[in-house]
Amino acid sequence: MPATLPDMTLATAVAIDDIRAAARRLEGHVRRTPVLAGTPIDAILARQLKGHGPKVAFKCENLQHTGAFKLRGASNALLQLDDGVKGVLTYSSGNHAQAIARAGADLNVPTVIVMPSNAPRIKLEATRREVARGHERSRIVEYDPQTQVREEVGGAIADEEGLTIIPPYDHPHVIAGQGTAALELCEDAGPFDVLLTPCGGGGLLSGSAIAAKAHNPHCIVIGVEPAAADDAARSFRSGVLHSVRNPDTIADGTRTPCLGRYTFPLVLVNVDRFVTVEEDEIIAAMRLVMERLKLVVEPSGALGLAGLLRLVHEEPGAVAGRRIGIVLSGGNVDLDALPGMD
Amino acid sequence: MPATLPDMTLATAVAIDDIRAAARRLEGHVRRTPVLAGTPIDAILARQLKGHGPKVAFKCENLQHTGAFKLRGASNALLQLDDGVKGVLTYSSGNHAQAIARAGADLNVPTVIVMPSNAPRIKLEATRREVARGHERSRIVEYDPQTQVREEVGGAIADEEGLTIIPPYDHPHVIAGQGTAALELCEDAGPFDVLLTPCGGGGLLSGSAIAAKAHNPHCIVIGVEPAAADDAARSFRSGVLHSVRNPDTIADGTRTPCLGRYTFPLVLVNVDRFVTVEEDEIIAAMRLVMERLKLVVEPSGALGLAGLLRLVHEEPGAVAGRRIGIVLSGGNVDLDALPGMD
Repeated sequence: MPATLPDMTLATAVAIDDIRAAARRLEGHVRRTPVLAGTPIDAILARQLKGHGPKVAFKCENLQHTGAFKLRGASNALLQLDDGVKGVLTYSSGNHAQAIARAGADLNVPTVIVMPSNAPRIKLEATRREVARGHERSRIVEYDPQTQVREEVGGAIADEEGLTIIPPYDHPHVIAGQGTAALELCEDAGPFDVLLTPCGGGGLLSGSAIAAKAHNPHCIVIGVEPAAADDAARSFRSGVLHSVRNPDTIADGTRTPCLGRYTFPLVLVNVDRFVTVEEDEIIAAMRLVMERLKLVVEPSGALGLAGLLRLVHEEPGAVAGRRIGIVLSGGNVDLDALPGMD
Repeated sequence: MPATLPDMTLATAVAIDDIRAAARRLEGHVRRTPVLAGTPIDAILARQLKGHGPKVAFKCENLQHTGAFKLRGASNALLQLDDGVKGVLTYSSGNHAQAIARAGADLNVPTVIVMPSNAPRIKLEATRREVARGHERSRIVEYDPQTQVREEVGGAIADEEGLTIIPPYDHPHVIAGQGTAALELCEDAGPFDVLLTPCGGGGLLSGSAIAAKAHNPHCIVIGVEPAAADDAARSFRSGVLHSVRNPDTIADGTRTPCLGRYTFPLVLVNVDRFVTVEEDEIIAAMRLVMERLKLVVEPSGALGLAGLLRLVHEEPGAVAGRRIGIVLSGGNVDLDALPGMD
């Protein structure tokens, strides 16, 4: 396969005005989630950094309706559909699926959700519930991720039924919607010297970066990925698109193979750096959030904190004394499957 | 032992003005915790009640500093100490201990915390951390709850060192402080037809009842207790004080033996009824909060929801279609000891 270079003309596809417009559009459709600051994490980091701990503010998108930030992008896209659209189709391992299903139910738009048969049970069930209360033509289509490619499965159905595809991240309306979480975080607890968010397909990360830079141009925006799914980190460093197919990581929200046509150039322009973390660091961060913040987060949702803890040990100068924002992106985890909880 | 009748003259010891004054006093000392409404719990109850589900709003005191509402009462008491006080002493199995230790550290008041040696590890450790950053004379004193009575252990030290005792619930300033959680809940998401809170010693319950009735005189206030620790329910029904010593319940926050001199008459006058729940119902409610609200709650913290679920099955007419407030009182749970999580 030839090296895939980013189309940099798409780096202007989403700007801060789009995110601000999304924030206004989403009022009444998504929850303005709480921000927790002054938490015990500050005290822990102060001890580790000999009194020079950062001040960390957490944006609780696990408390968003559907349990994840994805409702922002999904709702922002569905609220801008052309009149006469027959319905929408998407493919997602979980949180975007549930978000599209809920937004469709709330707005009475038929939705077809293409999900891998091995998606986490909690995400499949929650999506089924949203589909059940939605339009009568709404439904879930399962596929086998080992033998089928979701874009192909979904594309065929969309062509046949005339549905508009709303992909999980690579769409300007989705990216602008996701950026509203960081916009609220900056408004409520900013300005920040550093912002950390998880990176899967790059929708949350690029939207967050645009919002954070608009609020404070000097804010360092950091994407955090599992080391086992470091496609975006490698793409960012090389400038050439890298992919990791079906990565073996507990952070199922980041199992997307690569950045997208829009998110790759947007990440290149707006993000400052990447940090990758090991699986045990993700689990430790999840546990810390549960024990000290009293919040249930999924593995992907804890990546921001895992990245911060990595920096505390490896590059303390990059975080000591700083004002830091972290997006806890979601809380949809099978409690039965939680490692370290037995 | 002769029957203990309540001194009804003490039923005026706390009034709504005291709670409003506490709310003003506590600004900047406690977190105005978020309220979650429109959650998936509404949809679950709507299915169970054939479309006539209640609308439930949850006050997230698990997100309070120290992980429980207890910081409200503790801070309200310490903020009203007389000048020249040498320090305070308290006895508590956990959350009040941590709250007094933190309030003491924040206000530079020496604190002596008398804790049972079998207190939950997470509560002991958290209290140790607060004591460590507090006044140099602050310390923890452990006692054996099988052979010693905490009031006697604490009383002897307080006498010797001239310390002011701030008990965990039976104190007007503590009760008024605890009432501020329900006051905020009513302001943010009320009015309510029904309010449910856990009942241990009755501080949270009586304070909440006063606040809820002031906001809506028709609000039905319900205290929820573990069936294994139903001393308050029996005291309420009989008008005579009942005790349960060292009850065998997972809800460690309700292991207090009985209502107090102040809380008994206040509960009699302001509370409408009690509901008791079995241990498996407490665990199911905890799990539901974690799975659907993405919040970590301790067993006592889930009692309000456990009580609501009991009513949904036993007396659906009491809750169908109602506006319901629930105080999720705390989140300090040993994750390793969580039943149903293995």
